[in-house]
Amino acid sequence: MSEETKTPKAMTRRNFLKTSGAVAAAGVATGTLALKPWSAEAAPMPKKWQETFDVVVIGSGFAGLAAAYEAKKAGASVVVLEKMMTPGGNSIINGGVVSAAGSPLEEREGIKDSPELLLKDMLAAGLNLNHVELAKMVADQSVSTVMWTISELGVKYKDKLTQEGGHSVPRMYSTYNQSGSAIVQQQLLKLKTLGVVPRTRALLTQVYRDADGRVKGVQIREGYAFPKTGSGKLKDIKARKAVVLATGGFGADVAFRTLQDPRLTADMQTTNQPGATAEALREAFRIGCTPIQLSWIQLGPWGSPDEKGMGLSPFFAQLCAAMYGLWVDTKTGKRFVNELADRKIRADAIIKAGNKCIAMTDANGYAIGKKLLAEYMPKLMERGVVKEYKTLEEMAAAYSIPVEPLKQTIETWNKSVLAGKDEEWGRYLQKNQKPLGPGPWYALRLMPKVHHTMGGINMNTKAQATDVSTDKPIAGLYCAGEVTGGVHGAVRLGSCATLDCLVFGRIAGRNAAAEKAWG
Amino acid sequence: MSEETKTPKAMTRRNFLKTSGAVAAAGVATGTLALKPWSAEAAPMPKKWQETFDVVVIGSGFAGLAAAYEAKKAGASVVVLEKMMTPGGNSIINGGVVSAAGSPLEEREGIKDSPELLLKDMLAAGLNLNHVELAKMVADQSVSTVMWTISELGVKYKDKLTQEGGHSVPRMYSTYNQSGSAIVQQQLLKLKTLGVVPRTRALLTQVYRDADGRVKGVQIREGYAFPKTGSGKLKDIKARKAVVLATGGFGADVAFRTLQDPRLTADMQTTNQPGATAEALREAFRIGCTPIQLSWIQLGPWGSPDEKGMGLSPFFAQLCAAMYGLWVDTKTGKRFVNELADRKIRADAIIKAGNKCIAMTDANGYAIGKKLLAEYMPKLMERGVVKEYKTLEEMAAAYSIPVEPLKQTIETWNKSVLAGKDEEWGRYLQKNQKPLGPGPWYALRLMPKVHHTMGGINMNTKAQATDVSTDKPIAGLYCAGEVTGGVHGAVRLGSCATLDCLVFGRIAGRNAAAEKAWG
Repeated sequence: MSEETKTPKAMTRRNFLKTSGAVAAAGVATGTLALKPWSAEAAPMPKKWQETFDVVVIGSGFAGLAAAYEAKKAGASVVVLEKMMTPGGNSIINGGVVSAAGSPLEEREGIKDSPELLLKDMLAAGLNLNHVELAKMVADQSVSTVMWTISELGVKYKDKLTQEGGHSVPRMYSTYNQSGSAIVQQQLLKLKTLGVVPRTRALLTQVYRDADGRVKGVQIREGYAFPKTGSGKLKDIKARKAVVLATGGFGADVAFRTLQDPRLTADMQTTNQPGATAEALREAFRIGCTPIQLSWIQLGPWGSPDEKGMGLSPFFAQLCAAMYGLWVDTKTGKRFVNELADRKIRADAIIKAGNKCIAMTDANGYAIGKKLLAEYMPKLMERGVVKEYKTLEEMAAAYSIPVEPLKQTIETWNKSVLAGKDEEWGRYLQKNQKPLGPGPWYALRLMPKVHHTMGGINMNTKAQATDVSTDKPIAGLYCAGEVTGGVHGAVRLGSCATLDCLVFGRIAGRNAAAEKAWG
Repeated sequence: MSEETKTPKAMTRRNFLKTSGAVAAAGVATGTLALKPWSAEAAPMPKKWQETFDVVVIGSGFAGLAAAYEAKKAGASVVVLEKMMTPGGNSIINGGVVSAAGSPLEEREGIKDSPELLLKDMLAAGLNLNHVELAKMVADQSVSTVMWTISELGVKYKDKLTQEGGHSVPRMYSTYNQSGSAIVQQQLLKLKTLGVVPRTRALLTQVYRDADGRVKGVQIREGYAFPKTGSGKLKDIKARKAVVLATGGFGADVAFRTLQDPRLTADMQTTNQPGATAEALREAFRIGCTPIQLSWIQLGPWGSPDEKGMGLSPFFAQLCAAMYGLWVDTKTGKRFVNELADRKIRADAIIKAGNKCIAMTDANGYAIGKKLLAEYMPKLMERGVVKEYKTLEEMAAAYSIPVEPLKQTIETWNKSVLAGKDEEWGRYLQKNQKPLGPGPWYALRLMPKVHHTMGGINMNTKAQATDVSTDKPIAGLYCAGEVTGGVHGAVRLGSCATLDCLVFGRIAGRNAAAEKAWG
């Protein structure tokens, strides 16, 4: 019996843990500790930590790797923990585009741009629900961040800027292979030269937040086999300076996403990797992080049920059909939305139509797509995602579309094209827009896919997570990337997620390394 | 030193508390316990509770009073705690309308209605973000609940049903005095006959959730003087069966609402009473309740900055101006929205226009309003909320509207009226719609006001709050009313909040009383 427990006055929570920690630690070591559903009190600080680092980074996407890199460079000892078999999360499968406002490439092309303009675009897309100070940070650091990926990480980009819906000017850098892997691989490479290699199959099971309010470490399952609950061995890792949560979004977590948006059931596919689940976010809320804007979940309207994940469907649905064809409700044979409206409007319209919609075009629209994306169109055909029909009747039969209304729809559209105005839905007409027909016709089944979760943990501009009781920073806890909320508001602008992850990942890493060690 | 503490194996959290509780209790008694920002661990169970009830209800609006009534009738001992000086919360100042789908009054009027139709209307308004099982519960119990308010509480309603935007049929019962006070007063009266009188000036400061995951009581400040932090004396109250959180929404809480929707700054007024703040909701999240849909906050587009709270502005803005006049952006002199669009669309449009908008009409529009609401129009004039101008020029000068564009706007509108179609915004034209002019003109400054917070604590159909780690019910914790989320989805349909509060308040009360006492 220690001295403290004999004196009620000095019987603090922490002293209690010193005496009782052995029980918990024993439980952890054998993996038998039965945690209570609400386990803050059932999981006291471990008496002995099995490993110690200055900075413990959870997640190995853009944000986690950026945090680890900055923390390590600042002299901290760092571990990166990743629950999946391989590092990279959603980042390694993303499209590899990053916006920079006021970049050398823009200057070369004579494009006038500024962080202010990017911020304006982000706020417009975000329906002004963005936390402005966070969005501003991302916009302000866009050029320096992209330059950093080139000069310090060695990322290779294409020589030409591109533009996506919602951006005022072409400002997107695209990686040479059109994939985020070109960034992640360089991050991994550079980290390795610093001696940091992400530990995979390491699932976060608890964040230890002590009675003094400080986060002091994590419990993980080492050797975890996703998604097998209980696999792997429990281990306690001390974070002498800070824990960085960079665990991504919850697009692949049906239970949590349906709580926030009940339409997003298991029937709905996602562009995300299967590990994009909410357990770390739930844990953050359990220890008192402030939840914000969780019900804003972005759907890609250009998905198809006939291929998994992101797939290639966006190329056909957008370029061939939305620009040079029509989107049709198969139940009615009619158009149901402005095919060039924003992602949210179109996705909502498809869901409202019971996901019974196709994107279609004629030979001309298909040829335009094939010219621009030579390799993709044949692949879409080979995979059966896009199908060819000789006649309109044949296409109508394939999707059970009532033929006469469909013919009427095309006739109305063709009149609009000739008149130079889409009276029906107000769609922007292309300069080389032509009336549709005759066949062959090309069609793709549409199904919106869960793409990005805008909400999450509330943070400040220092990437500190805030406490739900006080809105003040939680000592020893940083966060970055899709697990946080606020940067993008209601709707994320394309090519700004990568930027967000890199900007706030670096901030989190630097600030975590600068924390005073607690023990 | 007790026996338990000598044996590490038996050193459970609860036993520890038995020995250390005296410290905490002493702190509580003297009001000197300094709670940590994250206080789950810093606030162990009290050793001695100063009072004990079966069911502790927090909040005294529709939901809290309904819960208290059912719990008491089921034989439980009950206390109702209210932080403000007087009971009733937002409920006592609300409009006093309750929907019932399939009611005797509908039958008398030959109106075909059903719970299914009400549910359909609720889901359409809620953009299908509603938790369907919760919305269904409300719709299914709508008739029995309104009948209960009549037969058991003695609430008096007008003899004629009314209809609001979004409802398929007229199905709204209106209290005789057009105020929720007609319901609250009857609830208070009936509770009093059962021996329950709400204790006012009693602020919830903590919910005690024990290491076993069960909620066991609350800490309050007795004699609290809203909004004076630290006023009143701390007291621990044991809830032998359950705590019911019925603490309302957070429309008046600038800090918490701007986290979820940064547009809703302090410059924005609210229709809510000043006590509609988030501290109880934050506390619910701190102890592990699941947060849902917090960023869906309803604004009333018909508010005016020239009167406080709800005021009378909706009558003029809606009836006189939206139906028989125009809404105009004072910066441009132009219309900026379909004046009869839903609340969300209109409120968003006003905010986008920098809150520089007026609702205006001519002598004819004013006369129509005055005929229907004889007492309100003169009051609006007396208070200076609506102002009269002899000429259009005079009105334009008063609001710094550019005159020529304003004249053009009216000319365009008048042409639309004569043509029978509003080409510009697609507004529905009234049967007795007439071109505007000549003067006098009447105008009111528009400013959306924060009206209802749709998100909150996640609950199941038994009104049990769920745990963020597991989505399972938290033992001993019920919730009802605006503090919960899910029933209304993205946008609440008018006259369904009162119903929601009464339905789930009663469910919470009944189930709380049926809980097994823990000690």
